[in-house]
Amino acid sequence: MNIDKLLNLNGTKIVLASGSPRRKSLFELMGFNFEVVTSEVDEKEEEFEYPEVKVLELSHKKAVKVAENVKEGIVVGADTIVVLDDKILEKPENEKQAKTMLRKLSGRTHIVCTGFSIFRKPDGRCVSEYSKTGVTFRELGDEEIDVYIETKSPLDKAGGYGIQDFGALFVNKIDGCFYNVMGFPVTKFYSTMRQFMNLN
Amino acid sequence: MNIDKLLNLNGTKIVLASGSPRRKSLFELMGFNFEVVTSEVDEKEEEFEYPEVKVLELSHKKAVKVAENVKEGIVVGADTIVVLDDKILEKPENEKQAKTMLRKLSGRTHIVCTGFSIFRKPDGRCVSEYSKTGVTFRELGDEEIDVYIETKSPLDKAGGYGIQDFGALFVNKIDGCFYNVMGFPVTKFYSTMRQFMNLN
Repeated sequence: MNIDKLLNLNGTKIVLASGSPRRKSLFELMGFNFEVVTSEVDEKEEEFEYPEVKVLELSHKKAVKVAENVKEGIVVGADTIVVLDDKILEKPENEKQAKTMLRKLSGRTHIVCTGFSIFRKPDGRCVSEYSKTGVTFRELGDEEIDVYIETKSPLDKAGGYGIQDFGALFVNKIDGCFYNVMGFPVTKFYSTMRQFMNLN
Repeated sequence: MNIDKLLNLNGTKIVLASGSPRRKSLFELMGFNFEVVTSEVDEKEEEFEYPEVKVLELSHKKAVKVAENVKEGIVVGADTIVVLDDKILEKPENEKQAKTMLRKLSGRTHIVCTGFSIFRKPDGRCVSEYSKTGVTFRELGDEEIDVYIETKSPLDKAGGYGIQDFGALFVNKIDGCFYNVMGFPVTKFYSTMRQFMNLN
C-alpha cells in the first residue's frame, strides 16, 4: 500500500505514540511504515468539562512526550474514552467492575470519543482532531456477559468491551466511524494528514 | 469462547455455506466451531424487485444446496449486495470496472444488504433474515482509487471495496451494522440463532 506516496511523506518517519494493539493494527491497515513508542502520561489526572477536550489534551500530551526523543518525523498520539450519561467509563479494574460496566451499557446508546494529535519534528507543527461515534447495545443477558468476561478481553478496554471481538455481538448499531470505536478514526486521520501535508 | 453454551448447541455441527474469507473470520470472531462447505449457486440468474428479496432467496438457496450433503447440523448461507440508486454493484470484473464503481460511490451514500439463512438438518427447520447498512463515502481522488486498485483487493468484493482493509479510508460514516458491510451481520445472526434455538 503506497500511503507514503498518497500523503507525500517521502520516507518521513512515522511514530505511533500508543501501546494499543488495536491502533497498531489500524496503522498497518492504512499501510504505514511506522514504529511504536509509548510514553508515561497519567490519564486520570486530567480534569475536563467536555470529553472532546480530554481526548484532545491527552492525545496532545502523549504526542509531545514521545516527540521529545524524536529528532525528525511525525509523532501521532491518541486517546479514546467511553461516555455514558456524561460519565466516563474507564478500563475496568477487575471482572466485577467489567460486569457492572457492561450491565450499564446494556440496551442503551453510549458515545466513544477518540482524539488524535499529529506532532512534527523538528518544526513543531501540530494539529489535533477528534471523532465521536454513537454505539447502541442490545439488551444483554447475564450469561453472555459472563462468557465474555471469561475471555479477559474486557479488562484492557475502556468501557469494558472490544467491538472487534466477541463484544461485537453486543452492538445493535453504530452511528459514525467504526474504527473510532476500535480506538482510531482512520478516515478522519487520513483527511487530517492530507491537510497537514497541504495536499487538499 | 463458549458460544456453544450460550446458544445451547450441545455440539451441533455448524456449517458455513460460504467461501468468503471475511465470513469465515466473523464466524471465528463469534467463537463457533464450524466447517466451510461451498456450493455452486448462480448468483446472477436471479431476478428480483427488492434487494432484500434477492439476498434472502440467494442465502436460502446456498444453505439448502449445501444442506443436501449434511445429515445432521445447522447450515448457514449468506449473500451480500451493494446497492446504489436502486442498481446492484456486483464484484468488478476487472480494474477498469473497479475504478468506475469507486468513482460512482465517491461522495455518496450506498446501501449494503446481507441476507442469511439458517437451515437445520434433519428436521428442515429454517429461518432467513437480512440486515441493511448505509455507507457514506467521502469524495475520492483518482490517485487514491488507483493506489487501492493496485492492491487487487477491490476485485473480489461486491461494490469494489472492503471496509476491513484500505477501503476503510474511503468511508466517512456508516449507519447500522459494520459487520454487515464486511459480509455478515453478527449481532442479528446471534439474536436470530437465540430465537431459532427457542432461547428468547
